Amino acid sequence: MIRPLGERVLVKRFEAEKKTASGIIIPTQAKEKPQMAEVVAVGKDVDGVKAGDKVLLKKYGGHEVKLEGEDYLILEAEDLLAVFE
Amino acid sequence: MIRPLGERVLVKRFEAEKKTASGIIIPTQAKEKPQMAEVVAVGKDVDGVKAGDKVLLKKYGGHEVKLEGEDYLILEAEDLLAVFE
Amino acid sequence: MIRPLGERVLVKRFEAEKKTASGIIIPTQAKEKPQMAEVVAVGKDVDGVKAGDKVLLKKYGGHEVKLEGEDYLILEAEDLLAVFE
Amino acid sequence: MIRPLGERVLVKRFEAEKKTASGIIIPTQAKEKPQMAEVVAVGKDVDGVKAGDKVLLKKYGGHEVKLEGEDYLILEAEDLLAVFE
Amino acid sequence: MIRPLGERVLVKRFEAEKKTASGIIIPTQAKEKPQMAEVVAVGKDVDGVKAGDKVLLKKYGGHEVKLEGEDYLILEAEDLLAVFE
Amino acid sequence: MIRPLGERVLVKRFEAEKKTASGIIIPTQAKEKPQMAEVVAVGKDVDGVKAGDKVLLKKYGGHEVKLEGEDYLILEAEDLLAVFE
Amino acid sequence: MIRPLGERVLVKRFEAEKKTASGIIIPTQAKEKPQMAEVVAVGKDVDGVKAGDKVLLKKYGGHEVKLEGEDYLILEAEDLLAVFE
Repeated sequence: MIRPLGERVLVKRFEAEKKTASGIIIPTQAKEKPQMAEVVAVGKDVDGVKAGDKVLLKKYGGHEVKLEGEDYLILEAEDLLAVFE
Repeated sequence: MIRPLGERVLVKRFEAEKKTASGIIIPTQAKEKPQMAEVVAVGKDVDGVKAGDKVLLKKYGGHEVKLEGEDYLILEAEDLLAVFE
Repeated sequence: MIRPLGERVLVKRFEAEKKTASGIIIPTQAKEKPQMAEVVAVGKDVDGVKAGDKVLLKKYGGHEVKLEGEDYLILEAEDLLAVFE
Repeated sequence: MIRPLGERVLVKRFEAEKKTASGIIIPTQAKEKPQMAEVVAVGKDVDGVKAGDKVLLKKYGGHEVKLEGEDYLILEAEDLLAVFE
Repeated sequence: MIRPLGERVLVKRFEAEKKTASGIIIPTQAKEKPQMAEVVAVGKDVDGVKAGDKVLLKKYGGHEVKLEGEDYLILEAEDLLAVFE
Repeated sequence: MIRPLGERVLVKRFEAEKKTASGIIIPTQAKEKPQMAEVVAVGKDVDGVKAGDKVLLKKYGGHEVKLEGEDYLILEAEDLLAVFE
Repeated sequence: MIRPLGERVLVKRFEAEKKTASGIIIPTQAKEKPQMAEVVAVGKDVDGVKAGDKVLLKKYGGHEVKLEGEDYLILEAEDLLAVFE
């Protein structure tokens, strides 16, 4: 597995379709690219979110990586907008 | 529900028409997009506004999200100009 | 009424014509837009000016708002150049 | 009279012609716009110059104001290059 | 050998092909340029990674050097995204 | 005479021709504009050079002034590259 | 001789050809301009390199000077990438 460095977080995006089914939150730009994700791991300088948190992301930014066949995103904690409670 | 991170706030915009009726404040650019909103939730580093406050927003900036069918805006507290008293 | 946030001030511009009559100060760009204003309210982090002060403004910057039918301007205290004594 | 705010100074430019007569300093760009001025008032955060000082100004920058029929300039203390001794 | 200065690191990129074989992580932009590397040496101000660590790099940035016939990259520690554990 | 403010220095450029004669240092761009100068006066926040020092200047930057018929340059101490020893 | 000011260093570039002969390190952009140099003198705020060190330079940046007929480069210590050990 990988550990993000510094103030970065590793997240896995939700599929927009699933979220529609659960009926909770759909970013208005969902037609383009989902903005929701689950936090997988956080760097040691990250404050306010932890692995397992569901978060809203800024629409742009971050680095795509593929891990054992699945797509992930590494981004600055600053690019997380909000956390679901 | 969602909790904004850091210095961000979650707000819900007013309809410009209602405000005209109450006759209090209409941003001069109201024809384009209303600048008034009610604060729904604030991040833990936000100072000076709280949930329930009516605020004036900068015209541009922020991230649109849809929550249970309603439109919200997540923005930096810095993008709030003033609070109604 | 509204309270500006942080280092912002709410001001009401003077009419350039009145000032000419009093013969004190006319910004040289007065033909375009008056730079003089009276401070109506200040944010809690504003230092050096207070409500009631007559001030000179930078020519550009600030956000226009209409309050009970009158035009006001919300701007950064940094955009105030000088205060009349 | 007016009091500059923060790190600003109020100055009155010299006429380039007079200075040529006194034969001391003429900015090489004097044909365009004189860079010499007398300090009229300083903001409370200004350090190193005081009212009455003769100074050299950067060629660009500052805000023109007319005070009882005379032209003045409000600028950042940072835009003062040197003081005559 | 060389020692990176300050907050820089010296890394050697992996061949994308080998990684596919090991089946662990392939950056999605691997067709263009591999983003994986092994840390060879770190500057004295680098925190969080050490020689021998396998890391993910930002896609752009860094300075290419050839050392005894092999290609290396010198980059800011800030350009390392994550470390393999 | 004039006293530079803050971190500024007043310098007088050398003639490139004289330096060639002394055979010590000629900036390679000497055909365009000499980069050598003698420090005439320094602001109170200048550290590392003093009046009388011979210095190398960045090729661009600074403000030209004429003082009793001679050309001088006022520039940021940061724009001095090196001092002759 | 000259002494670089502040965080600057004075270096003398190696000829790329000589280095090829020694077979140690050749920057991949060596066809354009060698990136290797020996430190001749350092400013008083430089940390981590000293006169005599062999260093790798960023490809761009620095100021060319000619000293007793030889070409030197004055650059920010920040533009040194690594030191040979």
